[in-house]
This record gives sequence, C-alpha cells and structure tokens, in this order.
Amino acid sequence: MDSGSKQVDPTEVVKALRRILPRHCILSDAEDTRPYECDSLTTYRQLPMIVTLPENEEQIIGILQVCRQFQLPIVPRGAGTGLSGGAMPIANGLVLSTAKLNRLIRLDPSARVAVVQPGVRNLAISDAAAHAGLYYAPDPSSQLACTIGGNVAENAGGVHCLKYGLTVHNVLRVRVITIDGDILELGGESLDAPGLDLLSLFIGSEGMLGIVTEITVKLIPKAPTAQVILASFDDIQKAGNAVAAVIAQGIIPAALEMMDQTSVRMVEPFVKAGYDLNAKAILLCEADGTIEEVGEEIARMSQVLNDAGASALRVSFSEQERLKFWSGRKNAFPAAGRISPDYYSVDGTIPRQHLAQVLLAIGQMEKKYGLVCANVFHAGDGNLHPLILFDANQEGSFEKAEAFGADILELCVELGGSITGEHGVGVEKLNSMCVQFNAAELNTFFALKAAFDPKSLLNPGKGIPSLQRCAEYGRMRVSQGQLKFPHLERF
Amino acid sequence: MDSGSKQVDPTEVVKALRRILPRHCILSDAEDTRPYECDSLTTYRQLPMIVTLPENEEQIIGILQVCRQFQLPIVPRGAGTGLSGGAMPIANGLVLSTAKLNRLIRLDPSARVAVVQPGVRNLAISDAAAHAGLYYAPDPSSQLACTIGGNVAENAGGVHCLKYGLTVHNVLRVRVITIDGDILELGGESLDAPGLDLLSLFIGSEGMLGIVTEITVKLIPKAPTAQVILASFDDIQKAGNAVAAVIAQGIIPAALEMMDQTSVRMVEPFVKAGYDLNAKAILLCEADGTIEEVGEEIARMSQVLNDAGASALRVSFSEQERLKFWSGRKNAFPAAGRISPDYYSVDGTIPRQHLAQVLLAIGQMEKKYGLVCANVFHAGDGNLHPLILFDANQEGSFEKAEAFGADILELCVELGGSITGEHGVGVEKLNSMCVQFNAAELNTFFALKAAFDPKSLLNPGKGIPSLQRCAEYGRMRVSQGQLKFPHLERF
Repeated sequence: MDSGSKQVDPTEVVKALRRILPRHCILSDAEDTRPYECDSLTTYRQLPMIVTLPENEEQIIGILQVCRQFQLPIVPRGAGTGLSGGAMPIANGLVLSTAKLNRLIRLDPSARVAVVQPGVRNLAISDAAAHAGLYYAPDPSSQLACTIGGNVAENAGGVHCLKYGLTVHNVLRVRVITIDGDILELGGESLDAPGLDLLSLFIGSEGMLGIVTEITVKLIPKAPTAQVILASFDDIQKAGNAVAAVIAQGIIPAALEMMDQTSVRMVEPFVKAGYDLNAKAILLCEADGTIEEVGEEIARMSQVLNDAGASALRVSFSEQERLKFWSGRKNAFPAAGRISPDYYSVDGTIPRQHLAQVLLAIGQMEKKYGLVCANVFHAGDGNLHPLILFDANQEGSFEKAEAFGADILELCVELGGSITGEHGVGVEKLNSMCVQFNAAELNTFFALKAAFDPKSLLNPGKGIPSLQRCAEYGRMRVSQGQLKFPHLERF
Repeated sequence: MDSGSKQVDPTEVVKALRRILPRHCILSDAEDTRPYECDSLTTYRQLPMIVTLPENEEQIIGILQVCRQFQLPIVPRGAGTGLSGGAMPIANGLVLSTAKLNRLIRLDPSARVAVVQPGVRNLAISDAAAHAGLYYAPDPSSQLACTIGGNVAENAGGVHCLKYGLTVHNVLRVRVITIDGDILELGGESLDAPGLDLLSLFIGSEGMLGIVTEITVKLIPKAPTAQVILASFDDIQKAGNAVAAVIAQGIIPAALEMMDQTSVRMVEPFVKAGYDLNAKAILLCEADGTIEEVGEEIARMSQVLNDAGASALRVSFSEQERLKFWSGRKNAFPAAGRISPDYYSVDGTIPRQHLAQVLLAIGQMEKKYGLVCANVFHAGDGNLHPLILFDANQEGSFEKAEAFGADILELCVELGGSITGEHGVGVEKLNSMCVQFNAAELNTFFALKAAFDPKSLLNPGKGIPSLQRCAEYGRMRVSQGQLKFPHLERF
C-alpha cells in the first residue's frame, strides 16, 4: 500500500501547485506545516512535504493531477480531531486540508436536508438549522471543532447515536472527486439509491477512495424535551445486566452511558456532577421526545433499573440538572488529562451482554500492565472507551498503554465485537485489523481500494494492514505465546 | 459484462456437479427448469442450462468451482418474486437457488437479532420472533413468499420502511461466499464495523458480488397499537402538499401511502375498503406505538391534513377497521390484474414536494401512449409505483408500456429522484441507469464488480449497463428528439 517512499523535489511540486492555487493556499515551510504533523492521536507525528488548502473543486482536481504527475501520496484532512491517526501526514506526501471549503450551500427545512461543504463544522450545521427546530444528529464529543468531512471519513458517532445512528445513517448523498479527477454523485435524497451502495462504502473509508466536496445531511426535529436518569450500582455485573435489560425491553434510550468507579472518582472532584463516589458503576439513561413520551419512557426505564438492582436512582427535574448530570460524562476526557500526564483512549465494541465481563477483564489487565484504566462506555450500543492513564515521560510507558489497548480490542473481537466503534482504524489499529479480518477479507478490501485508486495515492498505509504486516504481527504474537486467533498463523 | 456466450456441454457440467450435489439438487431437463425461466417480471424469460439447489456452504463452494472451471455464469435466486428481472436466467448459465437453505439458525430475543439462512421467508422470521413480541420490520408486499436472501439482493422495502427503513437498515451482518470460494463475514452485531463498509455494498448488489449464506437481522418490538387515517382530497395538488406537510412537521408516520382516483376506482369494487370514489386522491397515514403516542400522532396528523384541505378524514376505530382501510392498498396489484389483462409496475423515487407535479405529468403520458395508469405511491418516502395497464396480446402494447415506464423514471431523475425505490435494476432498468449515472460513475461500478468477480461470472448483464449500451440508448433518444440528459451524448 505504501507509495510514499519515492523521492520527489518539493520545489518542483510547489512550482506545479502554484499554477493551480494562490500562494496562501500552499504551505511548505516546516513552521507552516508543523500544525499538520498529527491529528488528535498525538503520539504519531510526521511532517508532510506540503500542505494545500484548496478553495474549490477545480483546485482539488488540479492538486490531484499534480499528485498523479509526481506520484505523490495525498492525506485528506478535516479539523484534525481524529483519534486513530487517519490524518497523519506522509513524509514525501501532500496534505489536502478542507479548511477553506466551509460553505453551507443549501438548507431546506421542508425537505429536512442541508447541503454543505466538507469543511463545515459538525455543530455549525445544527446552529444553522436551529431556527427551523431542526438539527444534525451525530454528536461526536469534538462536535464544536470537528468537520462534517472528517465525520464522513471516520463514520463518526457520538453519545446519541444509539437512537439516531452514526454518520452513515444521517448522510444522504456525497459528491466525490476520484484520484483521476472524475466527479461522482453517490446516494441521493430518497431512501434508496440504484446501483451498488457506493455512499455507504465511502462513509468511513478514511480518505482512501476519493475527496468529498459536498455532503447532503439529514436534519431531524429537535425533541421538545429530554430527561436523564442517573442510576448508581454497587456491583459492575448488575450495572452491565441493567443495560442489557433496558434494551431487551424494547426501549431505545436517546443515550445510555456507563462509567466505572475509577472514572466517577476521576471526574466528580473536577466537575461536581453529583455522581455517587461509592457506586461501583453509574448509568446515564436519557429519554427524549414529547413530555408524554419522555414521562412514559423514564417510568419504564426506572422500573427496569430498579428490577436490575440499582442502589439509587435520580431523575433530572430541570434542563439545568440534566446538563449537570451530563457534565461529568462529557468531561471524562479532560478529567483524565487533569489527573494523568497522558491517556490513551481505546475504542472497541462488544455485544451488550458482555459489559461486566469486559470490565472484570480490564481490571486484570490493569494489574498485568501496572496502569490504571478509567472506563467510559457508550453502553447502550456496546461501544467501549476505556481511558488508559500513563506518563509518556516514563520509558516504555506508552508502549505498555498501547499493548494494553490492543489486548482490550482483541478481547472485543473474541466476544463477537469489533476493534472500532466510531474512531476508525487510521494508523493506530492496523495490527488489530489483522485480528478482526482474515486474509480473504483483507484481500477484498485491497481489491476495492485498487478499483478506486490503483496506484494507492490516497492516504496509503491507513485503514487496511498489508498481509505482510499481519504475518509479522502473527509471528510476534506466537513468540509471546498469545495467539488466540488461529487465522493469524495463516497470513 | 456478458460472459454467458461461451458454448459448454451441459452433460459435462452435470457430471461435474453430480460429484458435489445429490441428484435431486440438480435440474437440467426443460420441464424441471421451466419454473425458473423468469422471476415476477414475467415479460423477460429465458430457460437456464441447469438449476442447482444446494443444501449447504460446502456444496455452494463446489458449484462455484465447477462454474469457474467451465466459465459458466451463475444467477442466484431466492423465491423469484423480484420485479426487475434480477433472477432471470442466462441461456448458457446456471441458476443457484437458495430454496433448500431455509434454516433459522439462531433467535436471540435479548440481543434482538435472528440469524437465518438466505432461503428463509421474510414473514417466517417475524412468525418465529412473535412469541417474544418482536418482528423483522421490512415488509415487501410479497413478504409471505419472498426470501430474506432475495431481500438482501434487492435491498427490499415495503409500506413501513418510511419509519423502519429498508433491508440495508435492518441487516447487521452477512456471511458471503465469493466467486473464488472464500468466505467473508461482513458487518456484525455492533452499530459500526471497522474497515470499508462491505455490508452495505452487498445489500442491493443483485447477486453480482457473491453468494450470501447467512444473514443476521435486527428484530424490533412490535408496537402495542396502531391506527390509520383515511383522508380524501378533491385535488391532487392538495394531497401531494399534505404529504410534504406531514413530513415537514417532523412526524414520521409508520406508513404514508397515496392512491389516485384511478387506483381507488380500480380497487374499491373489488375489496370494499370504504374508499371515497369521488376523491381525486386518498392518503393512508398510519401511527404506531403506545396508545398515548398513537393518540397524539393521529391528532397532529389530522390537524395537518385538515389544514392542507382534506375533504374528509376517517380514523380507524378498531384493528378490524384498520385492516379494512389497508385492504384496498394491499390489493392494488391484484385489482389491476382483475381489470386489465396485463400491468407493468413502475418503481421510482422523487423528492416528496413534487408528488402532484408527477401525477399531472403521468396524466399527460397516458394520453401520449394511449394507456391507463393507476398510481399507488409510498408517498411518505417519495417512492412511486405507477401501474401501467396494457394488453400483451395487442401488438406493440408491451413496448408502449415499457416506454411509458421509462418516461416516468426519467422524469424522476429530472426532479432529483432515482430510477428505483425498492425493486432493483435487474434487466429491466439497464437503460434508465444510463440516465441516472454518468460514465465515471458506471466505470466505478464496473471496477468494484471486477474487484469481486474479475471474470464476471456472477449474474452478468444485470444491474449495470455497459457503456456501449448507454451510447446506443443515447443515440436512440437523440433520434427521437428526446435527449434531456446531455451526458448520454458523451457515452
């Protein structure tokens, strides 16, 4: 996959780019390109050769033409809030930032859609639609900063995706420029689109298939009201079973989050959300809708949580209290940064019924690696975000955290889950992809990638591990006596 | 795409297949293969060389191996209820029927999933889950007969997909055998899956990418109650605007159907559903949920419908009456068969706000072609099913009906909609695909197809038109002075 090794003269590339782009849209000095050396997975850094900031489709087509001419790999980039290194630059490559493509093209409240450029911020769409009582549902915690283009690349989720879906469920159409400069329109405003479903294929493809230049998103009506239950449990097993019980009842909460005692104790002194410091785990269960709907759902959920053995339940009685209950969950990441020099955020999924089992196993891993892990889960959809605390200044500490994270992801696969819930694969999870998929499956990914981008110029080295890498990873795991996935031996 | 032209000796193929399959799983005499010569698009017929009915994955892998050896094209087939000819056989090819793969593998009410083989009937899944209060949501009108494998191939919809989604929104995972005999597991029980979204790509791929052998579907809780409003309008424009107004209000009805006067007058004498024969159009607007939710939504929808100028509203007061109101809509196709020797069912989508405009344009086309069209629409999601009545015994009558249908689909594209809502492309809509997509888009489809099936053995000639075909279609349209889509000239 890697085509970034060829040596190219940067001044020649800049010269070619200047024929297409105004000067202020090309950055090539290290001091200018430094801000682009990583995304929010800051442990992986690399200065790119050149950063471009195109202002329109014509300029993008021109940039791609220059990249084809010089065989230069291209790394597309939104706001750089990604957590798996999907936007990490390549040394002899070009970064294509969508920062200047930030126009809201059309807002149609009656059809409940918005058409935007990729550089528009996630929250800016909801702000623009607020006057019509509408909003864009997926809400990654970076939603103030992250762009819709990056959301498309990573199939971003958020706290409310249990009820309202991921990016793939909320995008109706994208306009794409292929590596050859062709324009494709994928999807449409109707429910189904003819032909192969290229829209879903693009969403979550981490910039490996093309450059998205327009996105049509679904807008949905803002629920008139919402309430949240804050439930305490004196036992992890009971909390895990309570989550499964809520869903099994046929309730689809607007959000269903879980925090373990470590996270509660990490966050409570910091934000004073009113969490129970003695609880082994807490749940936040939100209902939204009309007053009647919310009242009924809160009553049903309270019943299920009580039956599941909750030690205490509190229901938010005002919007202010609802936001207070949420403030702890929303500040979990900053709180980790407050008590620990560094933290490593893991992202995997499991079938809901195994929540308690995973928490117990993570407890064992904490002992194995001598590191503390704070567990914050989108429990309703089985999406785990363990935060492994470490100190990068201690030699070998990051490597330990990374191995700890890989262990958690392999446990996810073993339990029938997956190695990413909403952060993507990027560079971070290439090894874990070898655990998740067999050689035939990876070969299918390669073949698809090659169908769009035969010379692998678009974000090479991300998303899909080479079979060679998987073979090496398998050998390493065997030598450590850890091989749980026999197919790794066959790579 | 066509690889079905090579001459192969059928007795040699049968001999090879007998090493893999028991005798009763191979049909090669014309009297045995006759039932497979078409699907429900009965105007396209072709006897296949051989029909196979494998009983397990091993046999499928064996069949594919024989097909590779003889370069024999394969047409996968479910129950044959498809309406676009996706399962039409190829003369020198093999039909692979999933009829014997009809086992329900696992039903897990607490995780709300079922794992089934492709030959399981759509309604059989809901029947099996009924004891737990769950069901499988997509409900194509053929749901008693059609299989889930066929639903996956065509991304089937149904009356309730406005609220509950198409097949792609209700399938979590598929297990697939590639043309090379490799096994792929696509998707999973969690909300997101890592890597490229091959699951969505497979759903709706009309058997062109692989053979599905296992399907994990979402089960959802059966709503405690439902009510339907039967609304009459003395004007088409008002009815169309009423549909857009309901949706713009943020209401997502369980179903929102529209029938024009021709359909009402066609169906009412036959089923006595209580429809208003003087109405220019009627709407059926259903709400489901708890008693409180249904009551509130019915009240809101009634208000919107009144404001939009409905001439009469009736709300079903019992389950029996609800089914009576629906009986007319559900019998529209049989009623067409009762009053006309033949009918041609069209399937396209448009943005909702253009419903009235399309009905008026169809009225003009009725005059142009001298044929009657009864309009039955999944209006809420803009999915049109005009039924063009004709008599196949009259020379040129079918060709006129087909041209009429193509005109409707091109109007859909012109208005920003698409050429299929839920029936797929098959052989029927190859020309219309040329109108919907440009050469770069079709080339992307070809490249993807080739990534899975380089020799194009899987259902060749379906789903994607060749560029040559599009060029010919463009020339034909020019000679008729009808070219509305300039890109057709460039094929």
